[in-house]
Amino acid sequence: MTQLQSIDRLSLNQITTDKWSLKEAVDGCLRAEVPWIALWRHKIEEIGLKDSKRIIQDAGIKVSSICRGGMFPAATELERQKRIDDNRRAIDEAAELGTDVLVLVCGPAPDKDLVAARKMVADGIEQLVPYAKERGVKLGIEPLHPMYAAERSVIVSLAHANDIADQYAPDEVGVIVDVFHVWWDPDLFRQITRAKGRILGYHVSDWIVPTPDLLMGRGMMGDGVINLRPIRLAVEEAGYNGPIEVEIFNQQIWDTPGDEVLALMKERYIQHV
Amino acid sequence: MTQLQSIDRLSLNQITTDKWSLKEAVDGCLRAEVPWIALWRHKIEEIGLKDSKRIIQDAGIKVSSICRGGMFPAATELERQKRIDDNRRAIDEAAELGTDVLVLVCGPAPDKDLVAARKMVADGIEQLVPYAKERGVKLGIEPLHPMYAAERSVIVSLAHANDIADQYAPDEVGVIVDVFHVWWDPDLFRQITRAKGRILGYHVSDWIVPTPDLLMGRGMMGDGVINLRPIRLAVEEAGYNGPIEVEIFNQQIWDTPGDEVLALMKERYIQHV
Repeated sequence: MTQLQSIDRLSLNQITTDKWSLKEAVDGCLRAEVPWIALWRHKIEEIGLKDSKRIIQDAGIKVSSICRGGMFPAATELERQKRIDDNRRAIDEAAELGTDVLVLVCGPAPDKDLVAARKMVADGIEQLVPYAKERGVKLGIEPLHPMYAAERSVIVSLAHANDIADQYAPDEVGVIVDVFHVWWDPDLFRQITRAKGRILGYHVSDWIVPTPDLLMGRGMMGDGVINLRPIRLAVEEAGYNGPIEVEIFNQQIWDTPGDEVLALMKERYIQHV
Repeated sequence: MTQLQSIDRLSLNQITTDKWSLKEAVDGCLRAEVPWIALWRHKIEEIGLKDSKRIIQDAGIKVSSICRGGMFPAATELERQKRIDDNRRAIDEAAELGTDVLVLVCGPAPDKDLVAARKMVADGIEQLVPYAKERGVKLGIEPLHPMYAAERSVIVSLAHANDIADQYAPDEVGVIVDVFHVWWDPDLFRQITRAKGRILGYHVSDWIVPTPDLLMGRGMMGDGVINLRPIRLAVEEAGYNGPIEVEIFNQQIWDTPGDEVLALMKERYIQHV
């Protein structure tokens, strides 16, 4: 199977080096010649949008996505509207920082009603689309692993993300394929094919065994059980040839010096992705 | 919505009171007037099949299921055959102990190949069906939560369990619906309807938030976010009116005296199931 020949498409999702500030992460990417970065909003907030933009532009690094918008469901109409307003700010930030992808982590239900919460997600996306489109930003629905259904996202399958995305033009709403969230799905390859033309991001990491923790249990590519290459090839077959983000929540990796993490990430990217 | 009016269908899945031996669990059920029990094979093994059978018969308690067969995928043909042999013993135990349901936890892949492992599951079930049928035992495929895909089961959705079960007569192979494993699934109610006539067991617990652990994070009904009643009603609508097992892996519950657990379980069963 076809190995990647360069790191041209490699993107550091900033959470992988969580201890680094935005500036440190950008500098780290420059040293390692990683051409892309995915920014988290809490890192942007630390220094403000203006400085973030300057750092990105001065470095000449490309931004693969902004993480994250979403979190639509809430108990009251007022609170839901606040979330929409926050999403509009996230769209502004994406446009300002030069990426056309806002990743949506759609949010958990405020109560036990999954059906209602899923409708709030659909309604929220519907409200955002015109605003995002005007600013040249696409909304990427990232289905999370079902183990996050209670705390992070009621959208937990690529099928469901596709169902929502299908209601819009491909330049309005698409999906993010993150292997950690979807690798288990017997319907995965069919849903990747179905997402043709609207995959807006591809995220890699690994599922380590034994899995130490729900949130912090991701591993570096090659350290776990996910057969990564067929998934990348399927995503490419479905028309996606954009940046590939490495997104790892793992305390051991967070505790490792960032330059070492990037070196390992580059090596594993070629070997396993 | 319709509340249950009695505990006639309530079954103690033995793992809920993990510190109790089989004899202690049966005695606990008698004291609490819980009419059903689901037995785990490691508890049967502690005292042997003969004594287990005597205890069950003397108590006049009904056995809702034996947990568990399955674990089909393995790296070698020899090992896979050993697993089949072990499943035959599990079928014998089920028949001997007076239940017609063997719960299948299908097992993880021995490598990174989920497709191959899923075929091993299908092949294993195919091999077992005639043996089970002769002994009056039905095979209940229990889809596990996708977070167990790497370590416990490559069958992680009710849709997939239905796909396999559909290839057999309803008195040969069916499915087990465990709320903890399937509650997140946007396709849940459709798949319950699809399973009509072949639901062989219904298991309840709850998904607690924050979720403390992958394995030990289940909660008592009512302590989490699962909207239990609509699921039971759907399962009944699909023709299942058999025992309802309470199956909880939770250290705090395991550390609570069994009689207290059963008292609480009975109360929550009426309130929430």
